[in-house]
Amino acid sequence: MIEKLTANELTALLNELPGWKTDDSATSIHRSFKFADFNEAFGFMTRVAIKAQEMDHHPEWSNVYNKVEITLSTHEAKGLTSRDAKLARFIDSITKTSADA
Amino acid sequence: MIEKLTANELTALLNELPGWKTDDSATSIHRSFKFADFNEAFGFMTRVAIKAQEMDHHPEWSNVYNKVEITLSTHEAKGLTSRDAKLARFIDSITKTSADA
Repeated sequence: MIEKLTANELTALLNELPGWKTDDSATSIHRSFKFADFNEAFGFMTRVAIKAQEMDHHPEWSNVYNKVEITLSTHEAKGLTSRDAKLARFIDSITKTSADA
Repeated sequence: MIEKLTANELTALLNELPGWKTDDSATSIHRSFKFADFNEAFGFMTRVAIKAQEMDHHPEWSNVYNKVEITLSTHEAKGLTSRDAKLARFIDSITKTSADA
């Protein structure tokens, strides 16, 4: 059984990854992304999908043309865990690469 | 400017593709899909994404693990057009293939 992040760990995570916000009950984190077009948005989703499958930890997400909304949570723990932190860090790492290119 | 489907055309489409339902204002159609797992769900999404890009007509959609929700509408026409019919037919054609396999 994976343990929830402590309040201190969650605060540290949100400071580290300022694009992500928690819901009111702090059981999930959410971020919105906007890309140049659908090709770039779905390419991003594909990279996240491959990582998610590797981690066996999957996002809840939606896409409309160049926009992608992602929510992360760990159902098994009914809250946020190190898996969400790891996947959020990966997501931010590939969006930074894309933005810097 | 692409024209909206007539009421008769929309009725015929919904009879042809019974998995799809319109919203109350009949400006979009919606279908839910459930797959064996995330791999199969995202593989399906990838096939739809490639077709959508080829058509330059993109879905609004969301995914949670093995579930995919798709809404189709043509913003330019503020309603349903032959583009939505074409993409819905494609989507159903690949899900039938998958189910038959």
